[in-house]
Amino acid sequence: MALHCARCERLSGVTGSLEDQLTAVVGRSHVLTDAATRAPYEIDWTRRFAAPSRLVVRPATAAEVARVVRLCADAGAAIVAQGGNTGLVGGGVPRSGEVVLSLRRLAEITGVDAIAGRLLAGAGATLADVQRAAGLVGLEFGVDLAARDSATIGGMIATNAGGSRVIRHGTMRSQLLGVEAVLADGSVVSRLSGLAADSGGYDLAGLLAGSEGTLGIITKAAVRLVSPASERAVALLGVPDTAAALALLPELRRLPSLDAVEVFYADGLNLVCSQAGLHRPLERDWPAYLLVELAGTGAVAQISDTLAGLDFEDVALAFAPDDRRRLWTYREGHAAAITAAGVPHKLDVALPLDRLAEFVDALGPLVAALAPTARCVAFGHLGVGNLHVNILGLAADDWRVDEAILRLVAAEGGSVGAEHGIGFAKRDWLPLTRSSADIAAMRAIKRALDPAGLLNPGVLLPAESASAP
Amino acid sequence: MALHCARCERLSGVTGSLEDQLTAVVGRSHVLTDAATRAPYEIDWTRRFAAPSRLVVRPATAAEVARVVRLCADAGAAIVAQGGNTGLVGGGVPRSGEVVLSLRRLAEITGVDAIAGRLLAGAGATLADVQRAAGLVGLEFGVDLAARDSATIGGMIATNAGGSRVIRHGTMRSQLLGVEAVLADGSVVSRLSGLAADSGGYDLAGLLAGSEGTLGIITKAAVRLVSPASERAVALLGVPDTAAALALLPELRRLPSLDAVEVFYADGLNLVCSQAGLHRPLERDWPAYLLVELAGTGAVAQISDTLAGLDFEDVALAFAPDDRRRLWTYREGHAAAITAAGVPHKLDVALPLDRLAEFVDALGPLVAALAPTARCVAFGHLGVGNLHVNILGLAADDWRVDEAILRLVAAEGGSVGAEHGIGFAKRDWLPLTRSSADIAAMRAIKRALDPAGLLNPGVLLPAESASAP
Repeated sequence: MALHCARCERLSGVTGSLEDQLTAVVGRSHVLTDAATRAPYEIDWTRRFAAPSRLVVRPATAAEVARVVRLCADAGAAIVAQGGNTGLVGGGVPRSGEVVLSLRRLAEITGVDAIAGRLLAGAGATLADVQRAAGLVGLEFGVDLAARDSATIGGMIATNAGGSRVIRHGTMRSQLLGVEAVLADGSVVSRLSGLAADSGGYDLAGLLAGSEGTLGIITKAAVRLVSPASERAVALLGVPDTAAALALLPELRRLPSLDAVEVFYADGLNLVCSQAGLHRPLERDWPAYLLVELAGTGAVAQISDTLAGLDFEDVALAFAPDDRRRLWTYREGHAAAITAAGVPHKLDVALPLDRLAEFVDALGPLVAALAPTARCVAFGHLGVGNLHVNILGLAADDWRVDEAILRLVAAEGGSVGAEHGIGFAKRDWLPLTRSSADIAAMRAIKRALDPAGLLNPGVLLPAESASAP
Repeated sequence: MALHCARCERLSGVTGSLEDQLTAVVGRSHVLTDAATRAPYEIDWTRRFAAPSRLVVRPATAAEVARVVRLCADAGAAIVAQGGNTGLVGGGVPRSGEVVLSLRRLAEITGVDAIAGRLLAGAGATLADVQRAAGLVGLEFGVDLAARDSATIGGMIATNAGGSRVIRHGTMRSQLLGVEAVLADGSVVSRLSGLAADSGGYDLAGLLAGSEGTLGIITKAAVRLVSPASERAVALLGVPDTAAALALLPELRRLPSLDAVEVFYADGLNLVCSQAGLHRPLERDWPAYLLVELAGTGAVAQISDTLAGLDFEDVALAFAPDDRRRLWTYREGHAAAITAAGVPHKLDVALPLDRLAEFVDALGPLVAALAPTARCVAFGHLGVGNLHVNILGLAADDWRVDEAILRLVAAEGGSVGAEHGIGFAKRDWLPLTRSSADIAAMRAIKRALDPAGLLNPGVLLPAESASAP
């Protein structure tokens, strides 16, 4: 029988296996050991990353998470934290027999406060849960993305997720007013008062955001809420190329209600239209398409005035919810249409906006030179330079095209992980865009907070033997 | 003569003093050693914090900063980084013979980009410089505060400064798209591409923000710019108390153009009016005053509609720039009026908004009980719960009232350093509002990045002997 020591908060008198000790903390039904029940936690959304876990443990509270972490630390068992398992870079599934610590049971939303404009979300609450809770008090959450029904707040913080509203509200890190998290030694750091002005000490919340489970396990977050949009307007414009789309940005950026500026291209639109059986959205076909959403007072008038001033010939405008959703389908349908066409190599990069047009123009020739039969489909968040580059028709283990594209990204001053993170998939490419001084500082922080390397080993930081290119 | 080694970037063959070695890097005129030229760098804006420095060094580039840091490290000389020296917590002036490293010569602003909505500012550029540069491309910087002509971007990042627009745009940390900084070992971390979506590695920029010069010395920053306000409206309302002011927040927060929500009280207004010779702003006197600014399309209509709906009896509205400035004078005149009335003990606290009214109501009795002849004048950024509490009539070394107020803040879940930081003044009170686990994590990060404790010793982290209360 397990005895809980009130002083040191450790379980003592447990001579059993880690499984038995964890069972004493979370109960039999929340320690999954047989292959069939573990299986959904061991393979990621892309189906590219899969490996057996030692076991899956599902604590229900931060205190339970802390005790689970201490027991794993005592047993020398590495831990992979997992939220909604919607990650795309192999950062939330086991690599080699780690314990999977699922946060999904910590799903409570509390402290929804219209005066302070914030709420508290358990790590396992989904984005859709948070959006609904904000709406109940007449406010909005500043982040939106397609996986809203599965992606959890904890995972979105851990990967510093982005989405379509980054141009207005920033990434997940920008929504944080504080977190509660369990560190590798089982200690609990916590700042949940939801203070919007708080310069009292180092920003542990911001550091944990984007650390992909390597520095601590987020159990709860205080997030800010934003004012709701009284009206919304969406415009889809045909443009000759990326440069023409970018040329519209200065004008658009002056509109206070600018909420999203997305881009896709003829090849992607063809895929979406044929897969989903859709009509073309505009009168004629264009090489590139710009999707703009305004949200807020005067949105309809602003988009109309702006487009009138720019003298566009081929535009679709949508104001009613169904019409707006129809235009968004052409953009949001990309991921599904690409996956239906094959198993893509998926890159998620960000470029400085003054280099983006050249980068996009270089993509086709670069892919063609290395893999003449491959197809490259790009789309993404133009306003923040975040492009999702998908390559179809490559062997699973042929990394030459990925490598060449990421080297080009690096040469242009971009990032090899824009909103999906680095994970396992891209860690050895991190030195392409972060200097050896940057990575040395990251390693020093990792060693300081997780000296034994128990939290998500093999993720984010490059293998120690990997040298900067 | 100093020889610069191209391989290790250190000066070799220098047998002279630290002064001579630094002179070889920055030139004779930028190493200040005599008391008269050092003096302005050795006393802070409040005149409460002053001590001699070993010398003042003024590098002009990040490379010079790195070489200065390496030389100081080799000499075991502690460093205090200093920007515009507008800090209020003794975090930017020497305590006991440190080297003052002034960043003011790194004042260049480059890369002003209306497409990407960002610019690059040297650490020594003032806030006003950055605001002007943003305006030249039709955009705005999202932070404003009264010390705009002196406060530097580097110092504002290091203290995670706030100001009046935090409710809309967040603190300085939220403006960061990346920084360049010199760490304690003289290495330079850098991320200046200005990417708005970048989850490639730990957020060193966010960690350095608010670290008050204890983890690294910021030399340059990429900051985001925001859309400009086409119109602005200011309203000054009289309200019976803090609770009545807070009750208006849910309605105000739904206005997309809400830019500032400030509060002050009858005693502060009396001081301002008598010091500055101003008429009362409203028809009658009120216990509390709420100043609201909207900025953006429809601001005038929004404020008028909102106030009409709320049926306010005593309101001043201002739309024209001069009229708006006149109303702001009642709020911005507080600091000068208080200083003219004596040498205040200055506290800068944040409270959860649902505890703010009780806190304000408790302040008067609390001060009266401990110091019957003292006066307490509070004002601040109501919308984010950030209050500046000034106590007049206390002896300089009588900390009983400060301590009692900060204990009350802590009991209510607040912060003892909202937008001014912790500095030297409040470091031993940090354990009031941060747990021992939080502080242990901060110390681990500090040791990891500055093992010898060379950067701003005695600032932010409590003395090692101090125990959590």
